[in-house]
Amino acid sequence: MYDNFNLLKLKIDRGVIFATIFNPPTNLLTPKLIEEFMRLMGEVAQDSEIKVIVFKSGDPDFFIAHFDVNELTTPIDAKPPKPDEVPPKSNELRGDHQMFLYFRSLPKITIAQIEGIIGGGGSEFAQSLDMRFGALGNMTVSQMEATVGIIPGGGGTQYLPRLMGSPRALEFMLSGRGYDAQIAERYGYLNRALPADKINGFVEDLAYTIASLPLETIGLIKQAVRAAETLSLKEGLIEETYLFGKSLALPEAQSRMKLALEAGFQSRESEKGIAKRTDEEIKDLFDNVSKK
Amino acid sequence: MYDNFNLLKLKIDRGVIFATIFNPPTNLLTPKLIEEFMRLMGEVAQDSEIKVIVFKSGDPDFFIAHFDVNELTTPIDAKPPKPDEVPPKSNELRGDHQMFLYFRSLPKITIAQIEGIIGGGGSEFAQSLDMRFGALGNMTVSQMEATVGIIPGGGGTQYLPRLMGSPRALEFMLSGRGYDAQIAERYGYLNRALPADKINGFVEDLAYTIASLPLETIGLIKQAVRAAETLSLKEGLIEETYLFGKSLALPEAQSRMKLALEAGFQSRESEKGIAKRTDEEIKDLFDNVSKK
Amino acid sequence: MYDNFNLLKLKIDRGVIFATIFNPPTNLLTPKLIEEFMRLMGEVAQDSEIKVIVFKSGDPDFFIAHFDVNELTTPIDAKPPKPDEVPPKSNELRGDHQMFLYFRSLPKITIAQIEGIIGGGGSEFAQSLDMRFGALGNMTVSQMEATVGIIPGGGGTQYLPRLMGSPRALEFMLSGRGYDAQIAERYGYLNRALPADKINGFVEDLAYTIASLPLETIGLIKQAVRAAETLSLKEGLIEETYLFGKSLALPEAQSRMKLALEAGFQSRESEKGIAKRTDEEIKDLFDNVSKK
Repeated sequence: MYDNFNLLKLKIDRGVIFATIFNPPTNLLTPKLIEEFMRLMGEVAQDSEIKVIVFKSGDPDFFIAHFDVNELTTPIDAKPPKPDEVPPKSNELRGDHQMFLYFRSLPKITIAQIEGIIGGGGSEFAQSLDMRFGALGNMTVSQMEATVGIIPGGGGTQYLPRLMGSPRALEFMLSGRGYDAQIAERYGYLNRALPADKINGFVEDLAYTIASLPLETIGLIKQAVRAAETLSLKEGLIEETYLFGKSLALPEAQSRMKLALEAGFQSRESEKGIAKRTDEEIKDLFDNVSKK
Repeated sequence: MYDNFNLLKLKIDRGVIFATIFNPPTNLLTPKLIEEFMRLMGEVAQDSEIKVIVFKSGDPDFFIAHFDVNELTTPIDAKPPKPDEVPPKSNELRGDHQMFLYFRSLPKITIAQIEGIIGGGGSEFAQSLDMRFGALGNMTVSQMEATVGIIPGGGGTQYLPRLMGSPRALEFMLSGRGYDAQIAERYGYLNRALPADKINGFVEDLAYTIASLPLETIGLIKQAVRAAETLSLKEGLIEETYLFGKSLALPEAQSRMKLALEAGFQSRESEKGIAKRTDEEIKDLFDNVSKK
Repeated sequence: MYDNFNLLKLKIDRGVIFATIFNPPTNLLTPKLIEEFMRLMGEVAQDSEIKVIVFKSGDPDFFIAHFDVNELTTPIDAKPPKPDEVPPKSNELRGDHQMFLYFRSLPKITIAQIEGIIGGGGSEFAQSLDMRFGALGNMTVSQMEATVGIIPGGGGTQYLPRLMGSPRALEFMLSGRGYDAQIAERYGYLNRALPADKINGFVEDLAYTIASLPLETIGLIKQAVRAAETLSLKEGLIEETYLFGKSLALPEAQSRMKLALEAGFQSRESEKGIAKRTDEEIKDLFDNVSKK
């Protein structure tokens, strides 16, 4: 497993895969890079040891510039369209969309750690992941397809309105501009903008924390969030009650809860200690518990 | 009415109930506290004098720590699950969810004034209310269920994605961390983060302002917002037109509009005065009107 | 075309109409002003030269104060309601809602440049547009209908929850308060709050940038965003793939892409140049391209 990756450098550690993108000269989103993304996802899906995938860049100036425009006169799964010749609407998702949607139901978390320039199809790749963090003063995102007359085709028209609402998504796709990390956070593109010298440590800590959770718990939380995206509030609460019951019956949940109680975590002092873990690099208090 | 409350201290004033939580040692969400929340809601639902309920804490360090983990090995409405023994999916909402959803359709506004530590089931209780305000420098919220292997079961998996979007909701539930008021506002958990020495006055003013409105008007606005959550934009606008017609026919609306016009409120100077009421403690300009 | 406008001063330039509102004494939203808004939209819909409409105010203190309350005892399409006499629910949208929804599908972008006081029906008019920008230190928005006993009837109950979520929309409509540009941005009412001396330049640049795009591209992006508002993610991605194929087959897209490649835009240096266009007034790099 994890062989023959040339544009992604993989590092595996304690349940996390760090996939560092390096596709000179500008980390362009080429068909070969997409192939490696999809192959990686496919292999991770089969690997119960992996709980988190972090995508970052090996180029200090670029996360992913954008899709290779050369390819757009020769699209991957179609002959180049003649003017006014349009492929009919499909009943099926394109392969890459299929893979990324499939991943949204798996007990794995995907994170983009964005430093440098990110645009077009590279931005859409990041949008399809579970979370995005960006570096203050060292990130510029632009969804510039419209400037060459096309629309985002890698999911951007669907992910952006969900992340930032329609008014900002329209501005984002029509302005052709670059947005820095601060505005990207305010618009909802990023989970959060982080100081450039802290982003790496923050994402690592978050990744290891998530990887310390039971696989089943991650899966149940993702399942409940997916339910929230489509069900009414009432139906969603009924679904949650069912999934909560499932989590409660996990042997690892029962043992973690008992150990936590025995460790006295419901005392006033212990509770204050837990809550202090605000926004700083924390050691998972349950590290010991999960290893017993 | 409003008798036999031991964990909630109730104060009723001009259409507002202030319910102050005091359940030592850490304001844990115990079955007894949930019972008092539900009983209070049930009584308020029958009381047409009450328009607003404000929940706050009597403990300077804790709003509500979280659900009592001791109870999770003995859940309220079920025998403790054996490993791999999971209750089947229900067709009905759990009692507490039922009550809180029912409240979302009533002409009453529920507000959480959050100071101190809030977590787990306490956080989910707050999420189920209409509005949340938090104290800058004096609030930490954490949704830490996953650290003991379970998922939020008090509504959090459904309310959080609606408040902050899926990417931030996933981070919130999987990171196990504490979030301060500033980030809680940026993520959408809070309506707003307020200076610690202003939050009490702000929430009081807001509560009394809302309580000065006609009961029917509050109900129609809530009905319209609930419609917006489920209907298409077109269907929602049709619903609004119908509800707007209902509000226009309210005798109190007709008399308020006439009195406002007679008071000259459409003059240039008066309009400027109204708009100046930005974010400061204001006296309701229509106070006099509503008393005539 | 564009004749007999008395409350809107129209300026047409390079695909943009700037419509400046001037309806003394406080830019009240009168039936006559609504008629001019609707007539303008109707004419623009037929004019393929126009790609962007910017609404701004000619009164330094008011964008639009609110709907003329005098009219609410004599509603436009109905006899004044007697108390408890309510029009039945319609199957059709009111004329103004119909026009504004129709516009949401056209290849045109509508922008509100908000300076001064905006409230009530004027605020709802702005909410129905594609984008909103507001001036820091020179904007106050209030949705104050409830203070006179009625609910917003110009779309506010449906647009506000979509822009800012239900908890903030409820606060906005029930507090009766004025919100400044900074909070209006944080709540999602505005795309962005801009320095008062920069807003005019920013909106002009954005409008001209959008107007430099192919009409079909604007239309396809709006179509995809509308799809995102109603379809599931999977269905939306299938729709996007279809619309993307359409955009790829546009002759102007093919020629823009080729010219961009010939101009060397995928070089490392050129990519950096594109991304630097963060939040400052930029010249559209594809200006030359689009004129060839």
